[in-house]
Amino acid sequence: MRLVTFKYPQRLGTHIGALREDGAVLDLAAADPALSGGNMPAFIAGGAAALQHAKAAATKAPVAEGATLCAPIPRPPKNVFCVGKNYHEHAREFAGSGFDASAKEVVPEAPVVFSKPATAIIAHGETIPAHLDPTSSVDYEGELAVVIGHGGRGIRAADALRHVFGYTIVNDVTARTLQHRHRQWVLGKGIDGFCPMGPAILTADAVPDPKALRVITHVNGEKRQDASVADLIFDIPTLIEAISAGITLEPGDVIATGTPVGVGIGFTPPKFLRAGDIVRVEVPGIGVLENPVG
Amino acid sequence: MRLVTFKYPQRLGTHIGALREDGAVLDLAAADPALSGGNMPAFIAGGAAALQHAKAAATKAPVAEGATLCAPIPRPPKNVFCVGKNYHEHAREFAGSGFDASAKEVVPEAPVVFSKPATAIIAHGETIPAHLDPTSSVDYEGELAVVIGHGGRGIRAADALRHVFGYTIVNDVTARTLQHRHRQWVLGKGIDGFCPMGPAILTADAVPDPKALRVITHVNGEKRQDASVADLIFDIPTLIEAISAGITLEPGDVIATGTPVGVGIGFTPPKFLRAGDIVRVEVPGIGVLENPVG
Repeated sequence: MRLVTFKYPQRLGTHIGALREDGAVLDLAAADPALSGGNMPAFIAGGAAALQHAKAAATKAPVAEGATLCAPIPRPPKNVFCVGKNYHEHAREFAGSGFDASAKEVVPEAPVVFSKPATAIIAHGETIPAHLDPTSSVDYEGELAVVIGHGGRGIRAADALRHVFGYTIVNDVTARTLQHRHRQWVLGKGIDGFCPMGPAILTADAVPDPKALRVITHVNGEKRQDASVADLIFDIPTLIEAISAGITLEPGDVIATGTPVGVGIGFTPPKFLRAGDIVRVEVPGIGVLENPVG
Repeated sequence: MRLVTFKYPQRLGTHIGALREDGAVLDLAAADPALSGGNMPAFIAGGAAALQHAKAAATKAPVAEGATLCAPIPRPPKNVFCVGKNYHEHAREFAGSGFDASAKEVVPEAPVVFSKPATAIIAHGETIPAHLDPTSSVDYEGELAVVIGHGGRGIRAADALRHVFGYTIVNDVTARTLQHRHRQWVLGKGIDGFCPMGPAILTADAVPDPKALRVITHVNGEKRQDASVADLIFDIPTLIEAISAGITLEPGDVIATGTPVGVGIGFTPPKFLRAGDIVRVEVPGIGVLENPVG
C-alpha cells in the first residue's frame, strides 16, 4: 500500500492516509482510531501490527476531502541521509563538471554519505525556493529513498531489507556552487525546501525487489534521468550496512540512495533550475513527485 | 545560569535543572510547574519568559537528589551542525595528517559544515564507544558549541549573537580512517556516542563576549588543546550567518564551532584514543565535559 501524511484545510495537525490508485487520499484514523496521531515515524515504530491496522482501515476508510499532501515524513528522527556519487555514469558527469571538491577518484571506494535537515523537506506540489541560492546554481537529483522500519545498529547487508519499511522519492536539490565552496555538503544541499519528498511511501511488501524500480526525472517535460536502481554502485543492503555499522538507525529514518546520470551539471553549459521550471521525479509504483521552482 | 537536562534514578523522563557552582543539580520544575516537560528545545522556544521562570525557580528549587546528567540537548531539532578546519593551526595539522580527503587548500575559503545525528549524543560521564570504530582511529576534538535560541533564516552576522541562547561543550569524536574513506564526514563522525555534549548550557547573558572563552582538552591528564575562541577562522556570528543563509535555524539547534590544534592526528605517530583513556574538555565558565573511552 501507499501511505501518506496529509492535512485538512484550516485544521492543525497531520494525519496518516493511504493513497488510492486514483489519487484520492483515504483517512485511516477515521476508520481506526488506533491510527490517530498523524506522526509517521511513530506509526512506523508500531511495526507489523500498525501496518495491519492500516491495511484493514484502508478497506473502509473515507476519502479525506480537501486533503493536502505533506511529505510522508516531514520530520524524520535524524537529518535525511543522502548518498553522493552512487551511479557510475553520474559519478563521471559530476567529476567532469568541476563541482566536486571532495576527492580525486571518480568512483568512490566507500559510500559518500551526507545529510539534509528536516527544514529542507517539502511535499509534492510545494515550491522549491531556488531564490535561496544566491549563486543561482540550483540542480535537481531524482532519487529513490529508503524508509527504515525496524531500526538497529550493525545491520548486515543480508538482513538489511528486513529493516526497510518502504520506499519513497526524494529530489536531492543542490546549490552546486555552495556544494563546491563549502567542501562538506550540508550547506549546499540542506537549504530550506531543497528536499522534496513523496508523494507516498510504498510499503516494502509491495516491492519484492527494489532493484527492479526505476528513477525517471523530467524538467519541463524533457526527460533528463531514467535509470534502474539495479545500477547503484552501493546497493540498498550495502548502504544500510555501511550507515548502521556505527549509527543506530531508527524507525522513520530516510536514506536517499543517490542520483543517476542526467543532472543539470552534466550538460555543457550546465542547465540550472530557474523560477517557473517544473521538476518531476517518478518511480513507477511509488508515484510522481512534482515540484515547481520559485 | 547553567542549565542542564537530568533524570532521576529508576524514573522515566527528563527534567530541566540548574547546575549550581558546587555541582548540585536543582530541580526547576519542582519549584515552578511551568518548567515541567523536561524538553530543552521546547524550553528554549519559550524565550525570555521561560528563562525568567527558570532564574526565579533556581533561587528556591530543591536539589535533585541522585540526579544523573543527560546531554543538555539529547535530541536537537536537527543533527548537530559541526564545523571543520576552523582554527588555523588545526587546519594545518589536519592537512599535514593525510586524513583530509576533501580539498587541496589548508585554510577553507568558506565554513566547512557537516552534521552528527542525535544518536551520537551522550552525556558528561558516559563512555565513548571507541570499539564501534573498526579502524581503531578514534580521535577527540574539544569544541565550544552554540545553542540557538530565537531561530530564523537569513540571520545577519551583526544580529547573530541575539539568536544565541547559550553555550555548551561538544567533543566532536572522530573515526579518522572512516572520515577519510567516506569523503563526506557523517559516517566517520556520526557514530553512536561520538558526540559527548555538556555538562550544561551557560546562558548567553553570562557570556558578554564568546571570544573570551577558552577550550582546553586533556587526555589522561595530559594537556592536548588550549586555545582561545578568538582564534576561530570563521567566528560565531559568521557561522550563524553562513548556516542560516539557507537553512532555518530552530530553538535548540546546536552548532559546534570547530576544534583547535592538538588533536591526536597532529602527533607523529597519531595518538588515537584507546579503551581506558579519559578525555576531558573544559570551557571555563561552562564546566567540564569528561568521558571515559570504552
